[in-house]
Amino acid sequence: MAGTDKSRESITGGPTVILVEPQLGENIGFVARAMLNCGMTDLRLVRPRDGWPNARARAAASGADRVIDAVRLFASPEEAIAGLGRVFATTARPRYMIKPVQTPRRAAAELRAEAARGVACGLMFGRERAGLDNDELVLADTVIQVPLNPAFSSLSLPQAVLLVAYEWYQAGDETPPEELVLGRTLPASKAELLYFFERLEGLLDASGFFQVDDKRPGMVRNIRNIFQRKHLTEQELRTLHGILTALDPEKRRGGR
Amino acid sequence: MAGTDKSRESITGGPTVILVEPQLGENIGFVARAMLNCGMTDLRLVRPRDGWPNARARAAASGADRVIDAVRLFASPEEAIAGLGRVFATTARPRYMIKPVQTPRRAAAELRAEAARGVACGLMFGRERAGLDNDELVLADTVIQVPLNPAFSSLSLPQAVLLVAYEWYQAGDETPPEELVLGRTLPASKAELLYFFERLEGLLDASGFFQVDDKRPGMVRNIRNIFQRKHLTEQELRTLHGILTALDPEKRRGGR
Repeated sequence: MAGTDKSRESITGGPTVILVEPQLGENIGFVARAMLNCGMTDLRLVRPRDGWPNARARAAASGADRVIDAVRLFASPEEAIAGLGRVFATTARPRYMIKPVQTPRRAAAELRAEAARGVACGLMFGRERAGLDNDELVLADTVIQVPLNPAFSSLSLPQAVLLVAYEWYQAGDETPPEELVLGRTLPASKAELLYFFERLEGLLDASGFFQVDDKRPGMVRNIRNIFQRKHLTEQELRTLHGILTALDPEKRRGGR
Repeated sequence: MAGTDKSRESITGGPTVILVEPQLGENIGFVARAMLNCGMTDLRLVRPRDGWPNARARAAASGADRVIDAVRLFASPEEAIAGLGRVFATTARPRYMIKPVQTPRRAAAELRAEAARGVACGLMFGRERAGLDNDELVLADTVIQVPLNPAFSSLSLPQAVLLVAYEWYQAGDETPPEELVLGRTLPASKAELLYFFERLEGLLDASGFFQVDDKRPGMVRNIRNIFQRKHLTEQELRTLHGILTALDPEKRRGGR
């Protein structure tokens, strides 16, 4: 691809992931799985140690066959990135060159912005043990470093890919931070809740629960507060009414 | 611990991670590594399938011995969480109960807030294949669900732990989104940069590069812009001066 007029690739399926001399087939599979989890599909390998295709990679991908099937092999990092407009490298801190170093979250925002401008981007990762060497690192515009426990910051290759891919996915995702799973029932209305309070308090009055009249208002507030959590459902309220019925002394006295 | 007065634990090393019936020792090790990457140290296992201790777990932990050594075993999830004040469960969507479902990012903010209030929190994860059952899920206050590619959203157990732990770490981390690695040199001053421009333009004038006088100002602007990227360093500027000296026609004519 390098050196031709068609040096600019179109963007599909998120940023390209480039693994430089990955050693374990299993890790290539884990990377493919993490990529597809996050909606990325373009995986390129530079001189994988154990060759390609690799049965361990496919097994570890746990069904991310779409990524494994589309893997492309390259003889050098230069060839692997030739068609891209911007390259991020994930590595330890480079020591002998000046590079902007970004968190995965910041890089994710830039990846989204580049894509919106039509720039094809790549994420380059090095060998399991040795990472990228300086000649490879200089090919990247930007370095991504994951803020982690400084006393224990070494990530496995698939974990590093997962975190960067995860941030990329989150940067385009609109899931609300908190949702309520409603299942098959609806939140109870306030009228239903108040009816329950009145029934409960009536039963407690009849049973002598409120021994001191002065304390009744405070105790009623405490009890109401217990059930006042948000999103008590109609189903849960029916269950509570069932409990009242079961514990009703009138009913028990009647032997029913 | 359950049922005693000392039901409230103190908080050290971030939230507790509880794995319910994990199957593969290797996964327990990967979880320990991911936890320590993110500064978490308290790992509890409920009935691990292959028993404990487990050599595969220790090997896969890649040096996170501190977490492996401190692992505690429990006979049930109830016992494992007895001392905690709040429990988050990571699972697929619960179907038959009402639970707030949060993203890892939102949950991370709540975990930080709970810790600030002195509330010990736990993150509960289920079996590799089956996850948590409904009786276990009901023990949790909140469910965490990771927004992922809906067509391929199944995460491995260690990956799920990593993403939640990562968000927890990020929520307390203050790494600037972008830093510049300066290595052993400093950014060049503007005066140094202007001196370089003048020297370059003088050489270009002498060499007849600016063939049309009208176009000279625009071309000078273009050339200056090429080198005007942020953070050009003193070292890089010295290199550029060396290039000018090497290419200087006067020097070449002189045969030096």
